[in-house]
Amino acid sequence: MSPPTSVTEPIRQEMLVARILALHTHDVRFPTSLSLDGSDAMNPDPDYSAAYARITTDAGDGLEGHGFVFTIGRGNDVQVAAIRALAPYVLGRDVDAVLADLGGLWRELVHDSQLRWLGPEKGVMHMAIGAVVNALWDLRAKREGKPLWQVLTALSPEEIVDLVDFRYLTDVLTRDDALAILRAAEPGRAQRESVLLTEGYPAYTTTPGWLGYDDSKLDRLCREAVADGFTQIKLKVGADLDDDVRRLGIARAACGDGVRIAVDANQRWDVGEAIRWMAALRPFDVAWVEEPTNPDDVLAHAEIARAIAPVPVATGEHMANRVMFKQFLQAGALQVLQLDATRVAGVNENIAVLLLAAKFGVPVCPHAGGVGLCEAVQHLSMFDFVAVSGSAEGRVIEFVDHLHEHFVTPVEVHGGRYHAPKAPGAGTEMLARSLAEYAHER
Amino acid sequence: MSPPTSVTEPIRQEMLVARILALHTHDVRFPTSLSLDGSDAMNPDPDYSAAYARITTDAGDGLEGHGFVFTIGRGNDVQVAAIRALAPYVLGRDVDAVLADLGGLWRELVHDSQLRWLGPEKGVMHMAIGAVVNALWDLRAKREGKPLWQVLTALSPEEIVDLVDFRYLTDVLTRDDALAILRAAEPGRAQRESVLLTEGYPAYTTTPGWLGYDDSKLDRLCREAVADGFTQIKLKVGADLDDDVRRLGIARAACGDGVRIAVDANQRWDVGEAIRWMAALRPFDVAWVEEPTNPDDVLAHAEIARAIAPVPVATGEHMANRVMFKQFLQAGALQVLQLDATRVAGVNENIAVLLLAAKFGVPVCPHAGGVGLCEAVQHLSMFDFVAVSGSAEGRVIEFVDHLHEHFVTPVEVHGGRYHAPKAPGAGTEMLARSLAEYAHER
Repeated sequence: MSPPTSVTEPIRQEMLVARILALHTHDVRFPTSLSLDGSDAMNPDPDYSAAYARITTDAGDGLEGHGFVFTIGRGNDVQVAAIRALAPYVLGRDVDAVLADLGGLWRELVHDSQLRWLGPEKGVMHMAIGAVVNALWDLRAKREGKPLWQVLTALSPEEIVDLVDFRYLTDVLTRDDALAILRAAEPGRAQRESVLLTEGYPAYTTTPGWLGYDDSKLDRLCREAVADGFTQIKLKVGADLDDDVRRLGIARAACGDGVRIAVDANQRWDVGEAIRWMAALRPFDVAWVEEPTNPDDVLAHAEIARAIAPVPVATGEHMANRVMFKQFLQAGALQVLQLDATRVAGVNENIAVLLLAAKFGVPVCPHAGGVGLCEAVQHLSMFDFVAVSGSAEGRVIEFVDHLHEHFVTPVEVHGGRYHAPKAPGAGTEMLARSLAEYAHER
Repeated sequence: MSPPTSVTEPIRQEMLVARILALHTHDVRFPTSLSLDGSDAMNPDPDYSAAYARITTDAGDGLEGHGFVFTIGRGNDVQVAAIRALAPYVLGRDVDAVLADLGGLWRELVHDSQLRWLGPEKGVMHMAIGAVVNALWDLRAKREGKPLWQVLTALSPEEIVDLVDFRYLTDVLTRDDALAILRAAEPGRAQRESVLLTEGYPAYTTTPGWLGYDDSKLDRLCREAVADGFTQIKLKVGADLDDDVRRLGIARAACGDGVRIAVDANQRWDVGEAIRWMAALRPFDVAWVEEPTNPDDVLAHAEIARAIAPVPVATGEHMANRVMFKQFLQAGALQVLQLDATRVAGVNENIAVLLLAAKFGVPVCPHAGGVGLCEAVQHLSMFDFVAVSGSAEGRVIEFVDHLHEHFVTPVEVHGGRYHAPKAPGAGTEMLARSLAEYAHER
């Protein structure tokens, strides 16, 4: 006979461990092309969509982890297929162990010896990893009963750097460099957290500036933005120079001189064209020019930045990974860094990006809008303010007042500021009825 | 009553037009991890695979267009899903019209306003476009009854530049620059074509150098390579420096001094490590170091190239698009350009890459091996020799003697040279029984 302990102990142990049960996916598409919300020079008719991941466990606590990749319509099914392909990497795993080492899981997924051929670290497969990683962060935050930003700001500098993969970064940022940045920000954490909870974080709005809107709508929305307390707006440009000059004139007149007006070309130009176009827009005191050309083109952005200085170049929403951000910073190719919550491989990679930006002293002004990007990215900016850069100076989070009603904990933006979220989670959970109602029929 | 001509003429016209009937996909995987063929420092256990596209028409000529994306196993299903997502873009279209304007189709697919969000121009979606574009080139070549390289070399300079999208390239390569390069090569075309048909194109072999092979197999394969007429071999490095020093010693002794030995680190190093490692390998007279670090890192490659000169840096098999190639050339970050037949968006984008390389005077030594990459890429090098760079000096196509038996027109490599293919098509058609036998079961 076997000794009873050696049999029953592992079984009891096994029963105490919560496991990941399922990785559900949803192809969610909103028919936004009908209203031209979101129209710009490169994206005339987007259907804002989400390739959505929902992770369930057998913990019996009813908590799920939700994450997604934002897309603009066609191809969302491919993005969903990529998320589904990651199920074998998480199913059956010990929930506590996975959530306690999300840096380890990130490396496992991103450096998978076969999957990485599909990138490496870019495009559909990389963004799919981001959705799964973000869903796990959502689950972790819910289990801790805190909003994600407070989960992150409660970590020690050592715990934070353990989340980051420094591979390919060490020529400009080592683990020790990162620790030094985080330790320097430690003393002020509590004070900044209290500022955040009372004052929120500054926002700017893109709502007035879509290319598909006519002049009177532009004028009206600019005035409404200023009345709502925004101190910065953004206009889409790049389709037609005469139109842009006219629209900037309308916006400047409507906003007055005290409001910053950024412009966004959505990758429309080559180098020479960008420089000529921006020269024509110079009279309008442009706050920044966003995505002047191809988002992979470090050297082109650097050349444009030199030519149009002091107007800053902003980019990041299409930047595939931390190695690209590193180079843009090294080359002086961006002066405003616009990370995106669902373009790179999730929270962990965005922490690397925040550390890189802090190393170079470049402000992070995240890309948002789309589907749930405001809900997700606010946590990263707030974490940055409390624990990384320690500053909100020159920093604003994009805000578009659009599709928030589909989220369980929609952002609260009032008086031109994001209120610090207090609900547990990463902000990324969509309402079940929205998932159902906007499910894409193949 | 309607006049008879206005009714019957369009119907007869309609019946004369051949249409694209279907875009079939296949998930094909070879269990290569069992033998460690293809093992390197980053890819210890690849299962060489193809996400395969097969285009059929109602032309009644029995001709199909075949193309694929090479992957190394897991995720091949995602790549297949991406190819399938492109079906609506080609189904029902006029075959002659599509094949007569593949530059137009390329722009339509790559700049699709919704799909491009998934890249842009990188990763799974971009490679899927490559598979479809290459399948259409295969169909066009079969319909013309010529191998692809001769289809391309029969085009005028104007027809060639029409295939290329110069967007984002014009700061270094305009349409006029490209025309000048092609016109300069025109007078020698016929003479070089005849050289190619009699002498073939130089090859080098990677067969001896996989990391998973033991020392005696390495020694034996090196001797066989030299006996087979190869004047260059390549060894995988980067897992362990002592092993690499020992293996390079074995290879140099087996090959003798007259044979070039390149090394391939498969992205294993950060900048400092690459420079230190290559210093240790300097005594072995290395022909080039391939993929020393992350393939997106222009600035890191430039720094490594400066530090290890005169040893050339080679890269390209993971370079996502023409904009990345442009920057590597601008920055002096590569001295050997290794384009890949299935990484970028097909033949059209690779023509852009060949033109960029010619502009900078950098030799193109394509990546091959995998599944069908030798079969596909030889056409590009031969086109380059005849009509673009006009030179084979310093140029070699990679050769791995592996999986060719699955192709309808396998490469012929003898005496260390690729024989110019004469069969109609792009070389990309796999045997129907191989497609069936190695179909991946979900």
